[in-house]
This record gives sequence, structure tokens and C-alpha cells, in this order.
Amino acid sequence: MSGIVNVGIAGLGRLGKRHAENLAQRIPGAKLVAACSPAAEEREWATKALGVPATYADTAGLLAHPGLDAVFLVTPNTVHPGQIIAALKAGKHVFCEKPLSLDLDECLAVEAEAKRHPTLKVMIGYVRRFDASYVDAQERIAAGGIGRPFIVRSETCDMNDPSGFFVRFAPKSGGIFLDMSVHDIDLARWLLGSPKPRRVFSVGTIAVHQGLADCGDVDNGLAIVEFDGGAMATIYASRTMAHGHETATEIIGTQGRIVVGRDGRMNEVEVADAHGIRIRTTPTFWERFENAFLRETMHFVDCLRHDRTPGLTLHDATEATRIGIALRTSLVERRAVDL
Amino acid sequence: MSGIVNVGIAGLGRLGKRHAENLAQRIPGAKLVAACSPAAEEREWATKALGVPATYADTAGLLAHPGLDAVFLVTPNTVHPGQIIAALKAGKHVFCEKPLSLDLDECLAVEAEAKRHPTLKVMIGYVRRFDASYVDAQERIAAGGIGRPFIVRSETCDMNDPSGFFVRFAPKSGGIFLDMSVHDIDLARWLLGSPKPRRVFSVGTIAVHQGLADCGDVDNGLAIVEFDGGAMATIYASRTMAHGHETATEIIGTQGRIVVGRDGRMNEVEVADAHGIRIRTTPTFWERFENAFLRETMHFVDCLRHDRTPGLTLHDATEATRIGIALRTSLVERRAVDL
Amino acid sequence: MSGIVNVGIAGLGRLGKRHAENLAQRIPGAKLVAACSPAAEEREWATKALGVPATYADTAGLLAHPGLDAVFLVTPNTVHPGQIIAALKAGKHVFCEKPLSLDLDECLAVEAEAKRHPTLKVMIGYVRRFDASYVDAQERIAAGGIGRPFIVRSETCDMNDPSGFFVRFAPKSGGIFLDMSVHDIDLARWLLGSPKPRRVFSVGTIAVHQGLADCGDVDNGLAIVEFDGGAMATIYASRTMAHGHETATEIIGTQGRIVVGRDGRMNEVEVADAHGIRIRTTPTFWERFENAFLRETMHFVDCLRHDRTPGLTLHDATEATRIGIALRTSLVERRAVDL
Amino acid sequence: MSGIVNVGIAGLGRLGKRHAENLAQRIPGAKLVAACSPAAEEREWATKALGVPATYADTAGLLAHPGLDAVFLVTPNTVHPGQIIAALKAGKHVFCEKPLSLDLDECLAVEAEAKRHPTLKVMIGYVRRFDASYVDAQERIAAGGIGRPFIVRSETCDMNDPSGFFVRFAPKSGGIFLDMSVHDIDLARWLLGSPKPRRVFSVGTIAVHQGLADCGDVDNGLAIVEFDGGAMATIYASRTMAHGHETATEIIGTQGRIVVGRDGRMNEVEVADAHGIRIRTTPTFWERFENAFLRETMHFVDCLRHDRTPGLTLHDATEATRIGIALRTSLVERRAVDL
Repeated sequence: MSGIVNVGIAGLGRLGKRHAENLAQRIPGAKLVAACSPAAEEREWATKALGVPATYADTAGLLAHPGLDAVFLVTPNTVHPGQIIAALKAGKHVFCEKPLSLDLDECLAVEAEAKRHPTLKVMIGYVRRFDASYVDAQERIAAGGIGRPFIVRSETCDMNDPSGFFVRFAPKSGGIFLDMSVHDIDLARWLLGSPKPRRVFSVGTIAVHQGLADCGDVDNGLAIVEFDGGAMATIYASRTMAHGHETATEIIGTQGRIVVGRDGRMNEVEVADAHGIRIRTTPTFWERFENAFLRETMHFVDCLRHDRTPGLTLHDATEATRIGIALRTSLVERRAVDL
Repeated sequence: MSGIVNVGIAGLGRLGKRHAENLAQRIPGAKLVAACSPAAEEREWATKALGVPATYADTAGLLAHPGLDAVFLVTPNTVHPGQIIAALKAGKHVFCEKPLSLDLDECLAVEAEAKRHPTLKVMIGYVRRFDASYVDAQERIAAGGIGRPFIVRSETCDMNDPSGFFVRFAPKSGGIFLDMSVHDIDLARWLLGSPKPRRVFSVGTIAVHQGLADCGDVDNGLAIVEFDGGAMATIYASRTMAHGHETATEIIGTQGRIVVGRDGRMNEVEVADAHGIRIRTTPTFWERFENAFLRETMHFVDCLRHDRTPGLTLHDATEATRIGIALRTSLVERRAVDL
Repeated sequence: MSGIVNVGIAGLGRLGKRHAENLAQRIPGAKLVAACSPAAEEREWATKALGVPATYADTAGLLAHPGLDAVFLVTPNTVHPGQIIAALKAGKHVFCEKPLSLDLDECLAVEAEAKRHPTLKVMIGYVRRFDASYVDAQERIAAGGIGRPFIVRSETCDMNDPSGFFVRFAPKSGGIFLDMSVHDIDLARWLLGSPKPRRVFSVGTIAVHQGLADCGDVDNGLAIVEFDGGAMATIYASRTMAHGHETATEIIGTQGRIVVGRDGRMNEVEVADAHGIRIRTTPTFWERFENAFLRETMHFVDCLRHDRTPGLTLHDATEATRIGIALRTSLVERRAVDL
Repeated sequence: MSGIVNVGIAGLGRLGKRHAENLAQRIPGAKLVAACSPAAEEREWATKALGVPATYADTAGLLAHPGLDAVFLVTPNTVHPGQIIAALKAGKHVFCEKPLSLDLDECLAVEAEAKRHPTLKVMIGYVRRFDASYVDAQERIAAGGIGRPFIVRSETCDMNDPSGFFVRFAPKSGGIFLDMSVHDIDLARWLLGSPKPRRVFSVGTIAVHQGLADCGDVDNGLAIVEFDGGAMATIYASRTMAHGHETATEIIGTQGRIVVGRDGRMNEVEVADAHGIRIRTTPTFWERFENAFLRETMHFVDCLRHDRTPGLTLHDATEATRIGIALRTSLVERRAVDL
């Protein structure tokens, strides 16, 4: 592919809008030529705010857009596999937000379809792999900076929403581990050199949002993952932090340790007053990973323009789902689960 | 008891010497009147360096020392229960280093004996409960500062000793969880309000010291403990840190989070040079907890002088052992263990 | 002005290239339509790398470019005043890199010319005013968050270049205070509410680069600035840091203190190994202020599109130069200088 | 001197009590045999709380105490020189709190008297030289860890006392630089290798306590000190901090920088809640330097017991006063002052 990549986006919700803005304004080599949403006001936003030339109410329309090279899917988890397969059949490259699917068979079906289209790129958006700090950590580890890495301790913690708005989406989220911890699982695999998972164990509790009990979910969870070869990971997920969002990961090796994201600070400001010395923390994942989303899309677009393979494979996404499902099983069935 | 407490110490190894120095020089209200060690050079050290008036080769001699009020036991784990019982029978107050025992029946036997001597105080040295930072954290939590605490994440990590000297003591240590993590277990119970443990799970790996395989031990372990009422703890123990000793504990509540010991810094010095901006970390637990050992002994002596009950009960020590044993079982038998 | 702003840039050196890239790729509402440089390879870079439609070898050509709305001047300090005046006479809006000039009369001449063109915007690039952290600090202070601010302590420290390459440019730089500390001076004025300067004092030393002696310059300088009403600032400038670039500013008020940029960290990675616990620092100002340069240009373009007055006036730039000159005088003449 | 040092203390105010407690309970090799205070209740405290065998209402009585080896003077600044001279004439070693005197002639008179008693030790209590972190910094610098040190930036900031109680003592304090900054001056000299001061400049402001105007003092001051050989120091003193006490010092060398005391944290506790992530700071200098006071006294007692010269000489104390006086002159006369 020479020159500019013509991209269409499906899904213009909160995160979809962010991707659309990046594609329209900040990605050299990409052009946002079409957008798709069932909501008329979202289509109107794309037209007016971003000047997107064409909008569609359904994905079929989007895929038929003339000259389209690639689609960005920022749609509900449940429709990811069908949409990816449809896009591949239409001859389009695909970027899809994580997770690939909540169902392992569907993951494998997508992998199978992708194999039938060897010239098309498919990448699932595990955005942390494109964060400058995680990239730095991974490169140091790969260069032997901490000896042999063997433990990852990772957490994804969201600031509490007292309204509990998210509880209504819990039944479709796959539960806390599939919704939140897949990021940590993917990081653990990446930073440990993609070992094979062997066994998982998880526990959880409802600290605040009792409504989660109806679908067997929790608002705080702890997990352990064992890999072949003696590597291990421990994961913490929370939806009830008082102070902000935190994503932090510790990688322990035989010669040293790397921590990414320990302090969770919003910016370089520190205030000292009658309450002590304080920093403000990032309210959501967006402030923490805004630049990573940009780098992620740049990477994908560069892969299309220069016919390179994205760093992150469909198999990686399948593995994250597979381990996430096992953690969910462990939580619900209250037992260690072999993989 | 009015006035000065006459103390005898049994055990003058590395930690025993520290306790002896504190008792001899820095504890108002205490007098170190006798010391006991099977090693002649250690007894000589007590005489010459500290001016201890009397020394004994065995505990029986020490307990018979005229006018003795209390004994400090800084002896091997395996002899703790017998020595505590003998001291109680001799009418002495007892301070004993942690753990109480590696055997649950022995713990219960000590508790039973102590009940027969209601006027005698017995305290097991879970020193972190006397560290100013942990005390501050506990008081803030007890005052409702983070709402209801429901998760503790705690770690005890030692700097790697490349010689692997400790491997020879591993068979008698009870394994990594009983040797190291009992501290974290005790902290978790204390900070969460002493909930009843329900189930544990643990995994481990040998990262460096292959000799540990002979006794089924590991040099890095991860554990999860579930308590009644929805509280949970996750614990990390390591003997292979490259940069120093670290003890850190995070307590998560419904309204906030407290972290103790995050940065592990040795002192207030920060160096910026070609290697970045750096702090030096504490090489061993001693630099981190030196003041806590002092406060611990002061607390115990104060309890004797003013007939107060030590904050830390024998039951607390029994529970730490009980959970530690379950973690060991989980590691060896590769299954979750109900309590 | 409705719609898109057509911008031309003069100067395609290191920083000029950065501005050109931003204008060409990342500023919604701006179009980079022309570029100007005496160097043929720089003009070629603009054409090939950025697709700039027209290039010129001199500013006169650039200013005559049809349809041009605004110019960005990223040229040597000494030509700033003449170029700004020429651009204003040609009816163009002007963004010019700091400092406005090293000569006070020239500053005043530019101010006078600008007054003759009330519909044209002129802004000097004191980029730190657009850094998210400094903006946050300024807003907190303006909202009374630290009571009445009365002291600013600010530093600009560059990593040492052992080659001493910069020494050859020292004669034209105006000296360390006019070259580096004008940033801190501008910050101090902004954060203290633009008080009138009253008296300055400065000292300096050559720690490494003896070649600076020829032009009366130093590689490390300390300064104090007194303002009317009792506010004060102290400034540190260094060209010889071993570990990286640092820009840090402390603002002290009657009710609290704010520090911006204390830790100078490059990213969220922390390494613990045999050298202690370490962070990497930003090698140059660019890594620290990359986003601020982007926000600065967005601000300027927005002011043109919506006919708003830039937050930063020519008078601010004149004052920074005026205080910088006085600091230079104090250093050379070894006396306090009244303003 | 073999064995135990018999010490008497004069002055049992807030800091005197701390020294007395240390001498009575925590200094191996010292015995507090007498105490002196004009206040009956303070003498009573010494008797009851510490068991000091003898008390006196005046220094003459104390110096006549049989068997006395050394005196600790924790008395008002103005009486230091006379008391030191009297003690020397009585054949006693002397420890005296800083500053030696507010008057340069008095400093020199003490130095002269001390020369007449070469077997007696005199040390002025510049306590920071005994703080573990400052000692670590000094040793690293002396070992070449940051190349040649050439700039010190140091601050002593006290938490604001809204009652302004201290204002009544301001007339006798010598002003903010002689009262507070002498510590920073002494540190700067020590860390830079005792260079000769050449010129000073200072400014100040009254931010809160208007009552200070009556005696020409300020509650916030900034100063610059130039030394021979190109070394420089900049000093900040404040009595109006909102968040606590802070003592911080930065030493810049040709190969690196060391910072001591940057974060001012009270302990190892960090709280994350709706107010951000916070640490608590030390309320007063005592929490920061409690251990340093102990080490200082141990050092002095060891010097007596082993006939060693204290690290800190009377000349050091004289120099601190001399520079402090010059800073006061600069503030009052609004000019740079040559030394």
C-alpha cells in the first residue's frame, strides 16, 4: 500500500470518539473517510466535528464504502468476532478494541478466518503495549536488564463511580477479570516472554456495588497465574478506588526489578499545605494512556503502509481471553483451574 | 511490679545481640541482669561489651537467676514452645521472637500454659506492629480514615545472598511462608480487624537457589488468603531481591488506601548522576525496623511495669502460624486449603 | 478569520523543524503553506518530509506568499525584532520564539509597531506557560490555593555537553541569564501576578567550560530578583548537569506551596537493582515540554481563528528581557542592580 | 579519661530537656550527674523524671559539682560565650548549642580561651553534621562521588505558628539568618570543603508576621554566598510554611548532584483518597533530627573518652556566625557585603 490509508470507524461511543479524533487529526498517513454508528447524533458529530465525508448506520454500509482500506472496531465486545470476520471477508485490514471476544471458540474462529487472508492485518488494541513506559520496560527486560524475569505483579484499578452506573453493563462484560484484568494478563505474557499458562486461581469480593451479585461478579478481585517454566503473575483489579485510576506493573527478575506506573500522578504538580504533601492522580485510564492510544494507531497504520506485521498477534489476544475465562471460572467455582 | 524490670536474655546470635544491646543500654526501666548462650564467646561478649553481671550456658540456669522478672527468648524456632512453658512455670514474664512455633499443637499448648499463669505476660515479637509507620497506618484505619478496610497486599523481600548460606537452614525454617510471610499474615489480620481466615492458596518458584528443592521450599512465593466477611490478603515473599530488603504493605478500604513502606529508602539522600536519579535501599530488615525493635521492647517492659496487657496476644501468634502452615500445605500439595 | 489559518514558518533548525512538524500534522485549524530557510537541504526537508507546498530562501519571499495569514519565527535571537516588524508591516500575525530580543530598545520598538496593528496578534513563545503542569499550578494559585504567593524558586538546568559545542554560540546568546533564565523570570512574573521588578543580584561560576570566560559568561549562575510589594524570586541556571535536563519551579504562598517538575522523570519506569532504585531523567527540554509546544501553537492558532488575545503579551516578553539584562549587568559588574 | 563521663547540663527548656533525656538514658559511656536551671520546676523535673542526683540554680554551682567532667550548655544564645569561657576556666569539656554567639568578637574570645586549654574539648552543636543522611552525603562527596562540588542550595523552613509566639524572641535571635540559616551556612562550608567566604547578598520579606518589622527582621529570607575558588551557596529560610518543617540541601558537583531531605516525609505512610496521594511531613525539626541529636552527643562523649578531636571546630562555629552577621547586614543595609 502506498501513501494514505483510508480508514473507517465503527462505534462512536466514548472511546470510539477518541479513536475517531486521532484518526481524523493526528495520524500522519491515515485519512478517516467514513464512520458508522446506529445513533444519528453520533454520526452527526462525526460529520460536523471531524468533517468525516461519509457516515453509515450499520457496519455493512461501512464495509461497502468505496476505497476503504481498513476498519477500526470500537464496538461492544459481543459483536467483535462477527465484525472482524465480516471485515476480513470484505478485504479490509482490521483494528479492534480489546478483548477479541469473551468466548474462546469465537477467538479461534477469528484466528482461522484471518489465516485465510494472509495479506490482511488484524490487531487487537491492547494499548498498554504502546505506552512509552511499558515499551521502555519491555526493552530493558528483553535486553537482560533485570536478568531472567519470573514474576509479574500487575494491577488495574478504576476510580469508584458512586452512581454504580457500570453495574448495568456487568452482565455483558464477562466479569472483572475478562473486562479489566485481560490488560494485566496480556502485559504479563508480553513481559515474561509469552510463556504457556498452566493454572490459575482467583478470589473476589463486593466491597461497594452489591448489584454485581446478581451476575456473579465482584468489584475487587485478586488472581494468581502460573506459567510453564516457573514464571508466575499476580493480578489485582478494582472498581472502587477513592483517589483515581491506577495501572501499575512490577516485573521481578533474577538481577533486578522494574516498576511501571507506581505513582499514578496526573502531572508534575505537587502541593504542600495543611493536608501534607500531595499529588493529584489520573481520574481515568484516558489521561494515563492518551499518548499510548495515539502510538498504537500510528503503529497499526505504519504496519499497513509498510506491510509489516503488528507486534501483537491474534494469538496473543486469544491467550488473554483464555486466561481471563479461567480466572472467571476459578472465581465462580471457587477452585484452582488448570489450563 | 514497681520500678526496674530485671531481664534475662536467652540467645545471643545476630538478632539476640541487638535485643541485648537495647535491653542493656536503651530501655528505661529495664536492667539486663543475665544472659544465656551455649557459645562461650557469646557469653563473653555479653560480659565485656555490655557488662551483663551473670551468664549461663543453658536456659535452666538463666531461669534460676535470683531476682529475675522476665526473659527474652531469641532462640531457634523449634525450642520456643518448650522454653516459653518452662519460663512460665518458673514464674517469669516472657518475650519470645516470632514465630511462636511451626507446629499448631505446640502453639495451643503454650496458650494453655499461659492461661494457668494469668499474672504473667507473654508476647511474641511481631515487630512490625511497633513500627511508627505501621502504627500510624493502623490508627488511621481504626479511626475510619479509609472507610472499611477489605484488602491487604503485603510483601517481605530480602536482598539476595549469592552465597545461598540460608539454604542450609531452610529445612528447619518451615518454608518461606512460615519463615517470612508470617509477618505479613500478622499485619493483614491486625489491619483488617482480626477476621477469621477461611481459605488460602499459594504458589512458588525457585528463581536462584536450587538447593531449596530438597526440602520442598522456594525462594519466591505468592499467596492469597480469604477471610470471613469478604476481606482478602495477597502476599509476596522473596529471598532474591537485587537491590535490598523491602517490606511494604497496602491496605485498601472503601474510602481510601494506605501504603506503608513503598519506597524502601535507606535515608534521605538522593543521587543524580549518569545513572539517573537514585536512592539507596535498606540492605536488611534491621535498618528498616531498628527503631521498631526498640519500641517493641519498651512496650513489653511498660506492660510489665504498669501491669498492662500487651497489644499482641498469644492467639494472634497462633493464628499467624495456623495460616502459615496452610500456605505451606497449599504450596506443597498444589491445592487451595480450607481453614 | 474563518476556517483554516495559513501559516508560514521561518527557520528550520532543530526547534524550527519541531514547530514545522506540529503545524503540518498536529494542529487542527492550521495549514503549513510555506517554509523559509537559507539552507537548501532544510527547504528540501520541508518539501519532502512534510509536503509543504512552497519554500523560500528569505523572509521577504515568505511574507509575500499569497494568502499567508501568519508566520512562525524560529530564527536567531538577533533577527527577531526586524522580522517581527517586517511581518507586521506585511499584515501577518506573528508567533516568535523567545526571547523577543536581547536589547531593550528593540523590544520597545516591536511593542510600538504592534500597537500600530491592533488587529494583528503577536506572541512570544514562552512555552512553559502552556505546559499542563504549569497551567495547573497557575490556576490553583489564581484560585487562592496557596494564599498569597510571595516567593518563586525556579531552575533551568541542562545536561552537560562534554564537547562544549555551545560555547561557540555563547557570545551571541546574551549570557546564561538571558538565554536560559528568561524562562524562569517569565514564570516568576506570571505566577506572582506580574509584579514590577525592583532590584536584582546575580553571581556565577565556570564549573566546566573555561571557554566561556572569553565572553564574560558562566556555566552556572544564581540570581535573586526583588519585586515591588515584597515578592521575591531566586533562580538557578546550569549547563553542566550530569543526569539530564531539569526544569523545576517552587511557588511559596502564605497558605501553602506548589512545586512543579520536582522529579524530572523521563517516564513511569523505575528500576531497582544493584545501584539502588532509579528513575531515568529527561535528556533535554524537548522530552519535558513536547506537549507544551503543541498546546502553545494550538493556543496561538485558536486566538487567530476566534479573534482572542493571546495570554502572553509583548510587554511580558519585554519585561523578561529587561530583568535578564539587569541580571547580566549584575553578574558582570558584580553589584546589585536597581530597575 | 577512662570509663564513664560525668556530665552536667545547663538549660532545661524544650531542647535542654531532650539533651538531658539523651544523656540520662541513651548515651553509653555518659552519666548525667547534675542539672542546672533557674526554674525550680525544671530542676524538679530533672530529679523526678530522670533521677539526676544534683541540681543547681546557677551555672557557677554546676561547674563546682564534684567530679564533673563536661557540661552541656543549652542556654540562651547571649550567654553562650561567657558560660563556655567559665567552664573552660573550671577545667570542663564543653558542648554548647549553636550558635556560638551572635557577636564575632565574642566568638574570637572563646576561641582564644579554648587555645589556653588544649586538653579540653569544645564543640558547638551543629547537629546536621551528625544526621545519617548528611553524613552519607558528605562521605560520598569527599569520595569524589559527584566530582568537584561547587554549589550548595539549602533551606531551613519552619511550620508557621499562627500565634506568632516567636516574634517576641526575635529581637534577641539575631534575625532569621543568624537564627536559622547558620545551619545551612555550616552545611555549605562543610560540604564544599570549608572554602573562605568572599561576599554575600540577602533579601527578605514579611509574609505573615508584621510584628517582626519592629526589629528589622523578616519571616522569609533569600541569600547568596560567594566563596573563594568559585563555589557558591544559595539559602532560603522561612518561618511560615503551611505543611511542616523542611530541611533540604542540594549539592551540585561537576559529575553529579546529591539532594538531602527532599521529601520531608514524617514516616513511611502514604495515603490515597479523595484528596490525592499524600504524605505527612515532620511538624518540627525534632522529628527530622531526633536521631542526629543522639549521634551528636555520642560523638562528643566518644571524643572525650578516647581523646579525639571533635569533627566540628570552634573556627567552624565562628565562620557560621561571621557569614550570618554579613547576611544580616546585607538585609538591613540593602547591599552586597564583602567579607
